[in-house]
Amino acid sequence: MANSIYRASVLQSQLLFRPSLSNKHSVPKKSNLLCIASSQLNPIRSEVSFCIGTHLIPHPNKVDRGGEDAFFVSNINGGVIAVADGVSGWAERNVDPSLFSKELMANASSLVGDLEQVNYDPRILIRKAHAATSSTGSATAIVAMLERNGTMKVASVGDCGLRVIRKGQIIFSTTPQEHYFECPYQLSSELIGQTYLDAVVSSVELVEGDIIVMGSDGLFDNVFDGEIVSTVARHSDVVEAAKALANLASNHSMDSRFESPYSLEARSKGFDVPFWKKILGMKLTGGKLDDITVIVGQVVTSPAAASLNQVQMTGKMEEAGSGDTRGLL
Amino acid sequence: MANSIYRASVLQSQLLFRPSLSNKHSVPKKSNLLCIASSQLNPIRSEVSFCIGTHLIPHPNKVDRGGEDAFFVSNINGGVIAVADGVSGWAERNVDPSLFSKELMANASSLVGDLEQVNYDPRILIRKAHAATSSTGSATAIVAMLERNGTMKVASVGDCGLRVIRKGQIIFSTTPQEHYFECPYQLSSELIGQTYLDAVVSSVELVEGDIIVMGSDGLFDNVFDGEIVSTVARHSDVVEAAKALANLASNHSMDSRFESPYSLEARSKGFDVPFWKKILGMKLTGGKLDDITVIVGQVVTSPAAASLNQVQMTGKMEEAGSGDTRGLL
Repeated sequence: MANSIYRASVLQSQLLFRPSLSNKHSVPKKSNLLCIASSQLNPIRSEVSFCIGTHLIPHPNKVDRGGEDAFFVSNINGGVIAVADGVSGWAERNVDPSLFSKELMANASSLVGDLEQVNYDPRILIRKAHAATSSTGSATAIVAMLERNGTMKVASVGDCGLRVIRKGQIIFSTTPQEHYFECPYQLSSELIGQTYLDAVVSSVELVEGDIIVMGSDGLFDNVFDGEIVSTVARHSDVVEAAKALANLASNHSMDSRFESPYSLEARSKGFDVPFWKKILGMKLTGGKLDDITVIVGQVVTSPAAASLNQVQMTGKMEEAGSGDTRGLL
Repeated sequence: MANSIYRASVLQSQLLFRPSLSNKHSVPKKSNLLCIASSQLNPIRSEVSFCIGTHLIPHPNKVDRGGEDAFFVSNINGGVIAVADGVSGWAERNVDPSLFSKELMANASSLVGDLEQVNYDPRILIRKAHAATSSTGSATAIVAMLERNGTMKVASVGDCGLRVIRKGQIIFSTTPQEHYFECPYQLSSELIGQTYLDAVVSSVELVEGDIIVMGSDGLFDNVFDGEIVSTVARHSDVVEAAKALANLASNHSMDSRFESPYSLEARSKGFDVPFWKKILGMKLTGGKLDDITVIVGQVVTSPAAASLNQVQMTGKMEEAGSGDTRGLL
């Protein structure tokens, strides 16, 4: 039973009061939106591409190395975006956990230069990038490829995530894979790890105005989906949206009283404060200190055909902090 | 930061303690699993199809008409499954809310007889079924089509839902679309309603052993995702799994003290008990009385090629209660 008939009067109120991302975002301004698209003008209507903003905030204790997350964005085809998150446990074995994730993303970034060699398939991209990575370590990873017709293909191993927001609602989400709490599926230098065969592969049809939020678990462990939607709605610029989301995640991660997605998950898995604290009414709360990577993409109708000039950026090449992908629509 | 490196020792414990749906389910027994697949044996390896169980429990006050949900399942291609949920508000206008949903599903069922005419596309199926429906009313609807190579395409308008469970974890979920609380997106006889253009269209690559749970909001408003996973894990028979899920949803729907997904959603949207009850420590709890439709599908490697003999069932043709789809692998 769905109770309410959708009526014209409701439509009016919806138009008046609902945040309308598509209206706000559908006409990107060259001056403040950073878009990946071809610089070769060739007006083919109804093709789409991403406008992308990125922001990375390293774990406070890992700023010197820029953290253990890595990412890349590319304007190839409609756009390719990816995030990898190095598994921190390797530090206990005197292995820098950032090496694997950063090499993985660098390899993926190289491979998308010729999408035909990966069959325009994010899972094949993961397979080849993983095979080319020689560092010791492991990482979770997610890749999304937007085709010009609006189909976005996604492959994910582990707990990096992606949300699609349409007209103020999340219409598509990935779900994390884990062996147990705090041990996600991970691509590894060791044989025992997961491979591209363990990736969850999905796709979703996107339309102009859709907003994509991709991130490491540092985002999704600290920010609820509702907060992601409301934060994105407050920013018409994808770069500002990515920065705002990363800052929100960072603030929550340092707030020991915040009931974060992470603390709720931990409690649901049986982790909590000691019994004597419980009887005093205390409970496990707080965000999770972590590297935080956020990529926000907006689907725009592109006047440009498939690109010849690639605008590409790999997170590993940057200083710790924020990163922007610059290219003109 | 993902903390834990995945180690061989962990793998062993996982093998010992994790519910392994794929192991339990991968070898269907003719004697107790009800499968939709061709009866024409033609062993082509690596093709997949659904084994399907269904169960429908009407709203207690609507048993005489069989409720307002409708569904169909078909063995065409790898399998086509669909649920529609009639919008109950039409009763206030002296319109039987079940007519629209049942005609919509009957039309969809007819159309899948020749999938080429809908381009093997669930959104086109929704478009054509909607266009062919002449009853007054409106309904939410979801359609999933499994291709023999394992790609499952999904189109959904409103708040029917679908989950994919792999190795005891949900790896894919649809998300509901609504105008506001209790007013979902809906296909309608009126111009103001939604159309196939408003459908969220996605797809996911399935593998042998994956379990698909599709249902009306009567399932998802009353049963948490974790309960869906644990309930499915307790049943090796898809028919029993569907029945168990529907019964669990029904029990929760009649439990005024259960903190259901519905009551949590209501409170998060600002709905609650009156203030004077709140200061007495009371809060809005309870399940939601509703029609409950559950379809459980298991992906099996099929020894049969594309079917010639269609095994098909449409919910509208049945008596209220449970429904099984019978066909031998």
